[in-house]
Amino acid sequence: MPHIDFVPGLPGIRGPMAFSPETARPLNDLVNVLLRSNATHPDSTLSEGERELIGTYVSSRNDCFFCQTIHGAVASHHLGDTDWSLIQSVKQDYIHADISEKLKALLTIAGSVQQGGKHVTTDQIDKARAEGATDRDIHDTILIAAAFCMFNRYVDGLDTRAPENPELYRYRAQKVAEYGYTHEDHYMPPA
Amino acid sequence: MPHIDFVPGLPGIRGPMAFSPETARPLNDLVNVLLRSNATHPDSTLSEGERELIGTYVSSRNDCFFCQTIHGAVASHHLGDTDWSLIQSVKQDYIHADISEKLKALLTIAGSVQQGGKHVTTDQIDKARAEGATDRDIHDTILIAAAFCMFNRYVDGLDTRAPENPELYRYRAQKVAEYGYTHEDHYMPPA
Repeated sequence: MPHIDFVPGLPGIRGPMAFSPETARPLNDLVNVLLRSNATHPDSTLSEGERELIGTYVSSRNDCFFCQTIHGAVASHHLGDTDWSLIQSVKQDYIHADISEKLKALLTIAGSVQQGGKHVTTDQIDKARAEGATDRDIHDTILIAAAFCMFNRYVDGLDTRAPENPELYRYRAQKVAEYGYTHEDHYMPPA
Repeated sequence: MPHIDFVPGLPGIRGPMAFSPETARPLNDLVNVLLRSNATHPDSTLSEGERELIGTYVSSRNDCFFCQTIHGAVASHHLGDTDWSLIQSVKQDYIHADISEKLKALLTIAGSVQQGGKHVTTDQIDKARAEGATDRDIHDTILIAAAFCMFNRYVDGLDTRAPENPELYRYRAQKVAEYGYTHEDHYMPPA
């Protein structure tokens, strides 16, 4: 049972977002800019798939089932990872996953942010720069990791429910990739 | 030295916000709704001062100097706590501070969110309800605590600098109370 009364059947964050559309609006604006806007930043070298991967990794470290599953599905959609094997390998052992050295260095920073802002070290930043990360990439990685520390706590702090069927996440991931994040969508099939 | 290049002299979160106005906009929209909008929610029993106090407490638990000082100053402004003694007592030992039992119960929930969403218990929720907290109050407390877990990590993950002079925070707190949060303001005197 969620801690407060939500419309029944809405999965994960969609319950709180329907309860509070006033706060859902800026929350969705934030992820739309942060996870989908790389085209607007000429100094960004992070793709949408990589951004989603950072959010998925942090959600996994925070043990948030809904966030790691939906954002893992969105990352997989962008990266052509149809059987989710890349996502699994990043969550389990990103150092040996089939991703760039730059992304590994950024995931190390994201992992530090998950523990707390002061865990990020100058060495971690230098390593990411040596692999080609820009100021924009470092900024975005830290804000993505920080934002997922918020979203994960919002979802689990209210004890929301999440469906287990992976097909529901695949379906929604495709819609998110197409239309972006919104609290007013009608494209999640009933759980 | 901050981890990326900011305009020099901007305190705390204002460096990253000037660096990335695209993300600053939804971040400020979020706190304006969450910390200042209680008048728009007929089912809210939390004042602006109490909302700021929750953010201050979480920032203190996350050891974020800038956030706990500026939001402590805003809370003090709203609560008439001119010497900041109430803020200090809440940060040090809120159970014995001069605040309502309802706010104490909500601060316990906020403290759990700071550790992680799954730390919130049904007992903590029941206790808050018994003291008069509404669904809206519980929702807002959890989202405020979660949001400050983001802001604190954004500020400290980038290793931003913060001025120590309390008068600067008092000055800005008054402006925030008057005009709200914005990344485009010109009312912070030079640090």
